[in-house]
Amino acid sequence: MGYDGAMSTIEAVDLFYLRMPVVEDIADNSQDSLLVRLAGGGAVGWGECDAAPLVSIASFLAPMSHAACRPIADSVLGQRLAEPADIERINRLVRANSLDLLQTSHTLAGIDMAMWDLLGRRLGEPVWRLLGQDRAYPKTPYASQLFGDDPAETLAKGRAQREQGFRAVKFGWGPYGKGGVDDDAAQIAAAREGLGADGILLVDAGTVWVDDLAAAGARLAALRQHHATWLEEPFVSGALEPYKRLAVAAGEVRIAGGEGAHDFHMARQMIDHAGLGFVQIDAGRMGVTDARRVAIYAAEQGVAYVNHTFNSHIALSASLQPFAGHAGDELCEYPVEARALAREITATHIERGGDGRIAVPDGPGLGIEMDPAAIRRYLQDIEITVGGETLYRTPAL
Amino acid sequence: MGYDGAMSTIEAVDLFYLRMPVVEDIADNSQDSLLVRLAGGGAVGWGECDAAPLVSIASFLAPMSHAACRPIADSVLGQRLAEPADIERINRLVRANSLDLLQTSHTLAGIDMAMWDLLGRRLGEPVWRLLGQDRAYPKTPYASQLFGDDPAETLAKGRAQREQGFRAVKFGWGPYGKGGVDDDAAQIAAAREGLGADGILLVDAGTVWVDDLAAAGARLAALRQHHATWLEEPFVSGALEPYKRLAVAAGEVRIAGGEGAHDFHMARQMIDHAGLGFVQIDAGRMGVTDARRVAIYAAEQGVAYVNHTFNSHIALSASLQPFAGHAGDELCEYPVEARALAREITATHIERGGDGRIAVPDGPGLGIEMDPAAIRRYLQDIEITVGGETLYRTPAL
Repeated sequence: MGYDGAMSTIEAVDLFYLRMPVVEDIADNSQDSLLVRLAGGGAVGWGECDAAPLVSIASFLAPMSHAACRPIADSVLGQRLAEPADIERINRLVRANSLDLLQTSHTLAGIDMAMWDLLGRRLGEPVWRLLGQDRAYPKTPYASQLFGDDPAETLAKGRAQREQGFRAVKFGWGPYGKGGVDDDAAQIAAAREGLGADGILLVDAGTVWVDDLAAAGARLAALRQHHATWLEEPFVSGALEPYKRLAVAAGEVRIAGGEGAHDFHMARQMIDHAGLGFVQIDAGRMGVTDARRVAIYAAEQGVAYVNHTFNSHIALSASLQPFAGHAGDELCEYPVEARALAREITATHIERGGDGRIAVPDGPGLGIEMDPAAIRRYLQDIEITVGGETLYRTPAL
Repeated sequence: MGYDGAMSTIEAVDLFYLRMPVVEDIADNSQDSLLVRLAGGGAVGWGECDAAPLVSIASFLAPMSHAACRPIADSVLGQRLAEPADIERINRLVRANSLDLLQTSHTLAGIDMAMWDLLGRRLGEPVWRLLGQDRAYPKTPYASQLFGDDPAETLAKGRAQREQGFRAVKFGWGPYGKGGVDDDAAQIAAAREGLGADGILLVDAGTVWVDDLAAAGARLAALRQHHATWLEEPFVSGALEPYKRLAVAAGEVRIAGGEGAHDFHMARQMIDHAGLGFVQIDAGRMGVTDARRVAIYAAEQGVAYVNHTFNSHIALSASLQPFAGHAGDELCEYPVEARALAREITATHIERGGDGRIAVPDGPGLGIEMDPAAIRRYLQDIEITVGGETLYRTPAL
């Protein structure tokens, strides 16, 4: 690919905080959104952070604390953006200049998506190709949803997804791991019954046991009995030692995790030391650039790569790009319970084809068109002032 | 120790953003501050986050995104705080309820400090004792400062600290690692000359090589030649593999790192997999509670524990508490170039005694009195509104 030498810089970065009128106390990340719009060289790119929006907005514009704790804006605005190497350079710059600002990765993630989208649109190429992949293989989406409040509801939710044509279904969070071992076993049995014997059953514990190996280990028998393909996030991401021990004990049930990784290195640690069968990467938390590095490393190490996505279809597209060319990494997370906000803000949706699989978009950039009218419906009015100076006010769409 | 059963809850948490009139583009964390004041049961406790203040304020009050991405305030206000186990419980609660809010640890750190201070004041005990230690051993402070812009300035800075009576001096950041290998060698030679042959020379690369093993390895010869005790943060905290390889190559120069760890698990990963000789923990980034867990684990693993501190003396005191009882961990970081803000906001200072060592405060709590008039001089007026509702306005002191 040749890149023209025309001067292309990032001229504007706008952040938009969207929110459902009612946000429920459940583990559903689609209830709000932080969208990033990037403009430069006559084109526009979009991204979405999986992040607390107000906190990420603050990280973008917070006054400098010191040389390694700068507002993210300083390392993005005015930067040259003409080829993939520029995006990698800007990532390094942001991570160095905002090293001591913990929120950085979650904010950078959406900006990084938007940079790839913008560059792809300008060059007329899908992002997966700019990432060095020759083709994009279709993926088998797993319907990603929360456990029911009781086994009966879980059974019904499993059946419903099979009726919708999903071969693979994930149940997560909710009551799982919070009651007794028998309660959890009943949930798993119900999930399997709902799915049928041939469904791919995936279980997400949502870090409920933190680092308690015994608590997680007590759930393995039911997972094995009902042929769960993976147990996801038994522990917080950093708890490598309990992860590894559980993986040994789990046998044919593979351990999945990694959504808490917010850069390549954290994901690599899990691949190297946590005994993962599947590494799950959220491009809305570490960016497409680092996610691509993880996908390459995971393939080298024989660990399957799966996206983690619980937001809109701009984030879903971005999350598919880093492993689009990996035919062997066939599963992908596909949210099926997303709120109206997450469904409506994109005009384009990634839908299943007749074979039940989804195609990674092959339009320029991320291949997704946004819906400004829908975005406006959920947009929050924010104002942040420091010492009488307004640092942020919700921008015009 | 007995704890009375009197109902004691956290009634108020106030965050104060302080800032120097001019913040320079250097790696000096003392140029601003986020102070935390906690009130409950008729007592007050203070803490200090090493964090971008505006971002941490946002994390305290940001509207809930979902069940695992809540404002930190929700898990702190109104909680029972009568004994150490309550602090551990609140830490777990915050980390679970704000799991997906990346800034959480840096904000929690200052709250955690303030909880220990408050509890210690109420019980009339120093924090180190509440942490299960029988006595507090004096520490040998190393003068922590930035490299000079050139070797001549570094030499002068080394001499000045020896004249001030510091036996151990650390040089960090500035030009080190950014020019050639010879330039860096000249800096190390100058530092050694300034310190004299018997001084303890510590070198801080400030993550300048990110994960580039060869770049770091090229600096080892000069560090060995001039008998540096440690090379600190050659890489970002997550780069365990390069860390470990460098540690093998470094021989008698030990590798130090860990300030980027923002919970026990991240620090443990570095102890387990990075070949560290010294693990450096910033209580203003992970809190006293997790820092204590690290100190215990490091001692078990034969890795020396050192505080990382570049803020005021409330943070310095907090950073000393977790390893006060570890006689073998003798060195401690002691900022000598702190800005007026960081010096003035506490009325109490931790000063060296006649033997050049410092004592961990043995007054109740953190043993430090604040200076409200000084705090007021640097206090920033902040206002954050979402949808017309004011979520934060700088509180009264």
